[in-house]
Amino acid sequence: MKLEASRNESETLFARGWSWFKSLPENLKAKVIDIVSKTKKVGRDDPRRIIHSLKVGFAVTLVSTIYYYQPLYKNFGDSALWAVMTVVVVFEFSVGATLGKGLNRAMATFLACALGIGAHYIANSSGHIGEPILIGFFVFLQASISTFIRFFPNIKARYDYGLLIFILTFSFISISGLRVDEVLQMAHKRLSTIILGGFACLMISIVVFPVWAGEDLHNLIALNTEKLGKFLEGFGDEYFKVEEDGKSEDDKSFLHGYRSVLNSKSAEESLANFARWEPGHGRFQFRHPWKQYLKVGTLVRQCAYRIEALSGCLLADKQVSPEVKSKIQEACTKVSVESGQALKELALSVNTMVLPYSADPHIQKAKSAARDLKSLLRSSDWEGVELQQVIPAITVASLLLDAVTTTEIIAESIHELATAADFEKVGPTVSPEKLPKQLHPLKSESDVDCPHVVIEVKETSFTSVREK
Amino acid sequence: MKLEASRNESETLFARGWSWFKSLPENLKAKVIDIVSKTKKVGRDDPRRIIHSLKVGFAVTLVSTIYYYQPLYKNFGDSALWAVMTVVVVFEFSVGATLGKGLNRAMATFLACALGIGAHYIANSSGHIGEPILIGFFVFLQASISTFIRFFPNIKARYDYGLLIFILTFSFISISGLRVDEVLQMAHKRLSTIILGGFACLMISIVVFPVWAGEDLHNLIALNTEKLGKFLEGFGDEYFKVEEDGKSEDDKSFLHGYRSVLNSKSAEESLANFARWEPGHGRFQFRHPWKQYLKVGTLVRQCAYRIEALSGCLLADKQVSPEVKSKIQEACTKVSVESGQALKELALSVNTMVLPYSADPHIQKAKSAARDLKSLLRSSDWEGVELQQVIPAITVASLLLDAVTTTEIIAESIHELATAADFEKVGPTVSPEKLPKQLHPLKSESDVDCPHVVIEVKETSFTSVREK
Repeated sequence: MKLEASRNESETLFARGWSWFKSLPENLKAKVIDIVSKTKKVGRDDPRRIIHSLKVGFAVTLVSTIYYYQPLYKNFGDSALWAVMTVVVVFEFSVGATLGKGLNRAMATFLACALGIGAHYIANSSGHIGEPILIGFFVFLQASISTFIRFFPNIKARYDYGLLIFILTFSFISISGLRVDEVLQMAHKRLSTIILGGFACLMISIVVFPVWAGEDLHNLIALNTEKLGKFLEGFGDEYFKVEEDGKSEDDKSFLHGYRSVLNSKSAEESLANFARWEPGHGRFQFRHPWKQYLKVGTLVRQCAYRIEALSGCLLADKQVSPEVKSKIQEACTKVSVESGQALKELALSVNTMVLPYSADPHIQKAKSAARDLKSLLRSSDWEGVELQQVIPAITVASLLLDAVTTTEIIAESIHELATAADFEKVGPTVSPEKLPKQLHPLKSESDVDCPHVVIEVKETSFTSVREK
Repeated sequence: MKLEASRNESETLFARGWSWFKSLPENLKAKVIDIVSKTKKVGRDDPRRIIHSLKVGFAVTLVSTIYYYQPLYKNFGDSALWAVMTVVVVFEFSVGATLGKGLNRAMATFLACALGIGAHYIANSSGHIGEPILIGFFVFLQASISTFIRFFPNIKARYDYGLLIFILTFSFISISGLRVDEVLQMAHKRLSTIILGGFACLMISIVVFPVWAGEDLHNLIALNTEKLGKFLEGFGDEYFKVEEDGKSEDDKSFLHGYRSVLNSKSAEESLANFARWEPGHGRFQFRHPWKQYLKVGTLVRQCAYRIEALSGCLLADKQVSPEVKSKIQEACTKVSVESGQALKELALSVNTMVLPYSADPHIQKAKSAARDLKSLLRSSDWEGVELQQVIPAITVASLLLDAVTTTEIIAESIHELATAADFEKVGPTVSPEKLPKQLHPLKSESDVDCPHVVIEVKETSFTSVREK
């Protein structure tokens, strides 16, 4: 029995191997097609990635010419490699990240060189036996302490790379001092090549199609707010629509857009950290209130949690009887549409950097609709209806009332942001049609692919509420 | 007027400066105390951080002895610095991260050396003028392509560092080939020092108090599940408790514990990525189903979104009239306690790696309590009550019913995990008291500080449900 089983097994194994071999060309072809389509997707999702790749290639090639060019090579010698290394390691996607890493690297190298030379001199003066012991002690001490400091959350966020380079350079300088006696010269060369490399990639990063982390953060917050707005705006119709009509197969992407908001915290935080390194650019000053963006982002995410619950109601909507639905339909739809439009207006005002007055009327309408909904629930119309039947509808209603509250809070925080960041004043009396054209840079659907938004969240489409 | 104003201004500036100077010693003292307390907190939150720092210090010192030790130095020469560099850059907190970075570095160096030497020979054979142009072209091409590949999400997660090192080494080898003719020797030295450095820190990482990313992920998932369980278990009492009794100032930390779960996605994903590099260790095999942990984690997070909504109800609970509350109190409390205990049992079973049978009775009870709650809501007891008054209570009830459903789904996914990971079988007939002691490694509150959990989430406390 056992033998037969094992023979059967080996036979099936062989058959499997053969079929794998037979289908190899097809699998290979499928694999290649898959890779090509993925490559296209990565490029199309954010065309800035292609430009960034070319920029890095250009910077590395540029710096390596130091090696070819005789006079420069004489100056730096083999240390020229440090310049190449700096470019490869420091060149990041956004200007802020590049600047942060470059400054970290330069400052840490400078500090470590100074301290390393100090340690070297102290060890040097302690005799032939004491020297390696003392050097070893210094290296151990600074490596341990610096590694521990890297665990501090605030420091990790901004100076993690600097501490790494500090450990590295301090070890290099103090150890190599044992052999080469030209420690000072080595430190000098290392620092100057690093500054050269850092300067080269910073220039290329800023001058050639710059990618600003600040702008990405700005757009991400606006986009996330808009996603919630779109959900709420469409939710009412979606929840109360009659099942019969056949055209239910149209675009439902607005119902899922909010999901990326749930997990956007880490993206927002790292963008804010990068943005703080950036100089003023375009519409943003140096010291733009990036922290306020994080506050808005947190509130938007809290609103997204409510919307996640609402989305759950959409899936379970079969249980509600049509009569119950029809009773609250008008009020609920009004609440959801108005708060959705308020969020979309807020998103637009962030995106165009205009004071968010245009959202206020929508918020007022949403609030009054919320009052109507409450009084409707308070009315005695419900006497005959079984409580069990009303439950899902009531859950939706109360989640929508919640949504109005969170929308108000988001509006407040965006007002704060607008004040802190000196958004343009466009009086509330100006009718939408009179708004200058340039305030709607992302007005049409054809702008979907414009490279305005961060890596993870690409499906931009700032269609103005006013277009309707 | 203007002059006076500016004089006033400069006076206040001076006064401010003076007061700042006067309070300098105090501020300095406060700053120092602040730093000391923060340092203590970072160490106390996870004592493994201190050990890790010492390990890094030791590894760096160990490898730098190559530099002191004559025979070894003769072999490697100045390339010995690469070993130090490798240790500093590769040594990460967990074994998985260290192994991943080390393998990335070694493989990328090997590949880049091979290709770099190839490029060098091709360029060499193309004449004096063609050589630098060809080399430049190769460097540009590989840097651009590698940088672009780094944007692929799957590759970024596992091979980002390898691609960086590939660009670096390829540039080094192919450029330096122009000067030094001993390219092969350089490549050989670079590779061997990197392997030496990588091996040293890997050994230290594994042998001296190893930190396993897999274990951290395992504990994080268990801890997150337990946090939700604690919330649900305590929610009923908290929501329905009468305001009068004065002892409301006891520990409410269980009400906020779930918040860290909302944003734990990125921590889970990076731990899972690290864990996949790790060899078998302790209770975990190589190829332990780490991906299944991510599935469980996602479901747990979805449950946390519901709990966020429940938590909102706690804040707004003043609106509900006591009669309404008292009507649903028993059923609601039962549902919440049972599903909470089910989650705690599930957490315990993950933590102790026992098949999660012990959770099943709680889930059954929670489901039957949910049925009771539903029929209670269906009953005609509510005729007299105003709908407006019932709304908050109904919202709570329906969220709790949701919680039961998500608990069931979580239980299913943990059952899958238990099967895939070969959890121990402890039959459902064994009474809890007969469970062997070693299944409760984290039983008492005094274990709170034990270093079992990942950086961001430290407040472990696996108090068994059975202790009650």
